[in-house]
Formats: sequence, C-alpha cells, structure tokens
Amino acid sequence: MPHLIVEYSSNLSAYPEAQALAELNAAVCASPEVLDEADLKSRFVRNASFHVGTAASGRGFVHAQLRLLSGRSPEAKQDLAARVAEVLRRLTPRPAGVMVQLSVEIVDMDRPSYVKERL
Amino acid sequence: MPHLIVEYSSNLSAYPEAQALAELNAAVCASPEVLDEADLKSRFVRNASFHVGTAASGRGFVHAQLRLLSGRSPEAKQDLAARVAEVLRRLTPRPAGVMVQLSVEIVDMDRPSYVKERL
Amino acid sequence: MPHLIVEYSSNLSAYPEAQALAELNAAVCASPEVLDEADLKSRFVRNASFHVGTAASGRGFVHAQLRLLSGRSPEAKQDLAARVAEVLRRLTPRPAGVMVQLSVEIVDMDRPSYVKERL
Repeated sequence: MPHLIVEYSSNLSAYPEAQALAELNAAVCASPEVLDEADLKSRFVRNASFHVGTAASGRGFVHAQLRLLSGRSPEAKQDLAARVAEVLRRLTPRPAGVMVQLSVEIVDMDRPSYVKERL
Repeated sequence: MPHLIVEYSSNLSAYPEAQALAELNAAVCASPEVLDEADLKSRFVRNASFHVGTAASGRGFVHAQLRLLSGRSPEAKQDLAARVAEVLRRLTPRPAGVMVQLSVEIVDMDRPSYVKERL
Repeated sequence: MPHLIVEYSSNLSAYPEAQALAELNAAVCASPEVLDEADLKSRFVRNASFHVGTAASGRGFVHAQLRLLSGRSPEAKQDLAARVAEVLRRLTPRPAGVMVQLSVEIVDMDRPSYVKERL
C-alpha cells in the first residue's frame, strides 16, 4: 500500500530520477513492513516554481513523503524514513553554490476507509 | 470544502480526465456529506516519472486523495471512498500487459485552522 | 521545517507566482513559529486538469497546504493560516466571470520519524 512521492526543486538539475526510483523502491521493499513489493507506488515531481526561505536564490530541496496505512510502530516509521533518506542523500545532486535541504516525512493513511484493488 | 486529487502513472495513456472529473464530482456531490456542490475542488495529475515495486515495467496506478474537514464518521468516509473508487474503476484505462492498481485515500483536514473564502 | 505547497487552477492565468512566493515566505517566516527562515520550502503547482463542483465552467481555486512538525498550538496554526491567506487573497487573479475559492490548510507532520538535514 505505500505511496512514495519525491519532490525536488528544479535547480537540482540532472536529478537521476530513474536510478533513484529503482534504488528507493529496492530499499523500502526490503523492509519487513512491506509484504508485497508490488504495493509500493513511487513517483518524482520536479518543482520549477519554488522559493526557499527569504533568500533570493542559492537554495534547493528534495522532500520525500511516504504514505503508509496507519498502525506502524514509531521504530518502523523511523526505519522506513532512514531507508528513503539514505538513497536521496547519496543520489541528490549538489550544485556548486546551492545549499540543498533533504527531508523525509512519514504519513499515516486512514486504514478503515482506504480502498485498494487491482483492476 | 473537499479537495480531490487524482494521480496516475503516465503508462495509462489516454486517460479520460475530463470525463472522470465530471463523473467524480457528480458522485461525490451526491453524498449527503457535501452540502454545497461548488465546494468540491478536483484535479488530475499525470506522473511521468514513476516506478511500482521492484519490477522494471508492466505496472501502473491510479490513486485518489479526498481531503475533508475532520469530523466525518467512519461510515461516511467509507461511502465517499467507495463513490470515488466506482468512477475510477470504470474509467481507468487497462492497457494490455499492465497490472493497474487503484487506491483511494480519505484525509482529515484540521478544522480549527482551515481558512475558506470566496474572492 | 515547514513546507508550503500552493496549487491553483489554470484558469487563474498570469498568476504572479514569483511575487507570491516571496511574499508568502516573508509573511510565514515573520511568525515566531519559524526559527530559521531557510527552513521554509515553498512551491507553486498549476493544475491544468481540474473541475469545481458540478458546473461546467466559471470556477477556479487556489489552495495552500502548510505542513509543519506536530506540536503547534491551535492559535499558532490559525495565525500561520491567516498569514498565508492574506497574501493569496491579495495576489490571486480574479478573472471576470470566474468564481474563485481560496483555502488554506495546516497539516501536522509526524515529528519522531521526520528526517531533516543539509547536504
């Protein structure tokens, strides 16, 4: 069931999205929390219209949101966030003169109302 | 107040977005939970950069997020999710050789801090 | 740590995104809740595929989501939402014949599992 959405600012040019998607999915699916690897649906979104803080330029970000059905332990959530962060830390471009922030957020999805099926 | 955001993987080509938006809004606005049909703000997002699980290809997804002010009963949430799922199940393309996953998520929005107005 | 995501329907043409980003960040960073201005990561997303309610046309929206680490007081959240709303109310285009809705949502992010670092 997990959904992984990675956004990044477009000044991180040449982001290796395909490689990152493959490595993120391998890392997350290796967690005991993911029972079926096919459940993980990941995507990248490039933000061309962004602004970090009050400085005019010289800053960028990559932010990942992992949405899981509710009920995971705090330890499991921290482990999953660490798996995502490890890949993004390694693969995110670091252009000269740009301060790049990395963040990973775990979101609980409401389990009783969740619909999931294969068409 | 509801917001409906539907994302889908770009291998579901020729997704009938306009038809789906009209039918989704009709289905959701027919719920007794929606007091004013004009409140429902829906949009489609096509994800061209995606990866499902650890397989290289042959998989796609459509995922809907319905964001509501908090306070709905579990039954109301399940009903709303079912309304969204019915439309997407019917209208989502099923390309040959692609395993397509459908999911619907209900999200509670914090009511006390929510701002809403017409300009 | 805050993330600000502003979506708007594409019938609000010529949205002054750059000006809005600068003014939003100035307004939010002036809050005592934001300890380091560089933490605020804001972006605009234009939705070209949208539908509001059951009317065929003549409606648009702008919606902002401010995602914060959990633990803020209700008053602090209301103040932050008001800061965002003030800027959007002032800068959102109001095309003739279009009823425009403005909304602002505050989202709590799970603090224990949140990862944040500078690369």
